[in-house]
Amino acid sequence: MQVDGRPMRPIRALPAREGVQIIDQRALPHALKLVELRTPRDIFTAIREMWLRGAPLIGAAAAYGLALALRDDARDGALHDAMARLRGARPTAVNLGWAIERVQRRVQALPVHERADAAWREADAIAEDDVATNAAIGRHGVTLLRRAAAEHPERPVRVLTHCNAGWLATVDWGTATAPIYQAHEQGLRLHVWVDETRPRNQGASLTAWELGRAGVAHAVVADNAGGHLMQQGQVDLVIVGCDRVAANGDVCNKIGTYLKALAARDNGVPFYVAMPASTFDAALPSGEAIPIEQRSAREITHLAGRDADGRIVEVQLTPDGSDAANPAFDVTPARLVTAIITEHGIVAAEAGALRHLGEHAA
Amino acid sequence: MQVDGRPMRPIRALPAREGVQIIDQRALPHALKLVELRTPRDIFTAIREMWLRGAPLIGAAAAYGLALALRDDARDGALHDAMARLRGARPTAVNLGWAIERVQRRVQALPVHERADAAWREADAIAEDDVATNAAIGRHGVTLLRRAAAEHPERPVRVLTHCNAGWLATVDWGTATAPIYQAHEQGLRLHVWVDETRPRNQGASLTAWELGRAGVAHAVVADNAGGHLMQQGQVDLVIVGCDRVAANGDVCNKIGTYLKALAARDNGVPFYVAMPASTFDAALPSGEAIPIEQRSAREITHLAGRDADGRIVEVQLTPDGSDAANPAFDVTPARLVTAIITEHGIVAAEAGALRHLGEHAA
Repeated sequence: MQVDGRPMRPIRALPAREGVQIIDQRALPHALKLVELRTPRDIFTAIREMWLRGAPLIGAAAAYGLALALRDDARDGALHDAMARLRGARPTAVNLGWAIERVQRRVQALPVHERADAAWREADAIAEDDVATNAAIGRHGVTLLRRAAAEHPERPVRVLTHCNAGWLATVDWGTATAPIYQAHEQGLRLHVWVDETRPRNQGASLTAWELGRAGVAHAVVADNAGGHLMQQGQVDLVIVGCDRVAANGDVCNKIGTYLKALAARDNGVPFYVAMPASTFDAALPSGEAIPIEQRSAREITHLAGRDADGRIVEVQLTPDGSDAANPAFDVTPARLVTAIITEHGIVAAEAGALRHLGEHAA
Repeated sequence: MQVDGRPMRPIRALPAREGVQIIDQRALPHALKLVELRTPRDIFTAIREMWLRGAPLIGAAAAYGLALALRDDARDGALHDAMARLRGARPTAVNLGWAIERVQRRVQALPVHERADAAWREADAIAEDDVATNAAIGRHGVTLLRRAAAEHPERPVRVLTHCNAGWLATVDWGTATAPIYQAHEQGLRLHVWVDETRPRNQGASLTAWELGRAGVAHAVVADNAGGHLMQQGQVDLVIVGCDRVAANGDVCNKIGTYLKALAARDNGVPFYVAMPASTFDAALPSGEAIPIEQRSAREITHLAGRDADGRIVEVQLTPDGSDAANPAFDVTPARLVTAIITEHGIVAAEAGALRHLGEHAA
């Protein structure tokens, strides 16, 4: 996407395949820091320390990491060692395993001296597939925004989003943001309400930064505000991303998504979930079966930001001795989801429609 | 209430009536700072600069401020000047006006030399009335906690609260917290989920501090987490305070309250509002008529906390150039409120029951 008029991606292969250039997302939103990763170890560290995050982006980075490892040693033992090491960077990241297995399948049957080259091309393909998937989500989703614009041509379409399902979480376009960026490129007037998304503030830091750099009008709001904005008729539709969608259409996404879905239902505001078909988990009967990650209490008790002198400072918010709990995701029941925007089209959040999607993806 | 075993109030008259001692709440939760206010000007500053906040507490402080002013000059002109100055400290604080008018009514007909003494006694009475009101809210509310405890004697009663309707917002007990403190004193096992309450973090800083000092088990959670906790059966009941309740039972309270009420309804969790009868506004037909204060964007974009060296530092959270919106309150429709806990008893959130309450208060 555009960063102040300059095209940019959160990961990009270096021209002579000597590594990749990434955005170190830890410095956002206060600084745009580009970093070159030239070894499998660099990529491992970048994934583990969350210099980059977002399932599709982690997958692409891991694929390049495996390709770099095969450049050094492409024999079977080295391949398996490199895969095991990369998996350890974010053990729960499903896309990471999926991406490196895709590279493995591509190279396994090849002679050792052809593997590094083939792995690199497969990593490129994984990245480009993600871009194409998200662009297609955007093409389908933009029809919803155009319809909302047609109903109220006198004012911008007001979209609310939660967390960062933006291009920084993917190789390009983002998922929830793809319709927004395409609408913006097509000249549609938009205004995006950006949920701050406590405790990690991905909305206030990443989504707001993305939208600002692309010139999309937006305002950051406390996570508490969305219900009130809907009551006041200030939200035309909600679009969020997702981490996992169960066979029955239940949606697992960043903590707080469920509250916005309840408010959308209570106020007749359409609630859409943007989902690459790969995120659909046909083996999971319902959202109740999804284990919810409990993250560190420190994400609640402490927060980092930029002080008046431009330094990044971590401050404590809570009293000494107060405990904190930090569930990272919640499950929005399918009954609250208006529809799911996928690269194959917009489908109902119910088993029949989603089963068909599974066939598409297969 | 107790602060580490020592009884404390957020305002207390000095023994020779030379002023009041308050807790400077700007230093919480990182330091307990007691300040003496000995002039009307001191009290004006403390109210305006939010050294203290919370409607009942502002009312009591303003009453003492007027009494101090009358000590210097109790003639009619000085009385009216002092009232006008105090009103200007927080022009929208309804209790401030109410409290100083109560003092005025008490002293207006008295000879000038008797006014200062009478005003001080009236300020004392305003403070003690608030304590009695909140204690009565606690006595009624504690029955709800005892009932929940009886249903599950094997574990603590889990209460979720939003913002700070605690003793720091009143002269003692708090409103939403009064049932909690009384239950704790009666030996009931409790666990309180404390909503952080962005953007001003009154939960994470004030409510968590109060509960910690009183020895009540609690955990701070992101405002996003409450719905998930209810889905998981981790919340037995919600108790919140309120800023204003309309004739039909609609509740105006801190932004985000509505989202918790929706989640409570969706999960069959009782949702209670603690309300002194004085907060009931019989003249307001419904919540739709309540104007919602829009506060500074800076409360969203910046946040203060304690750095590793113990200094209070303000940090910026959002990217330069990103806008923010900050509605301070929302309206929870009466249909989502299980009941309202008042000093006169627990009443339904509907016009008939509340009208009767209005008669009580009159």
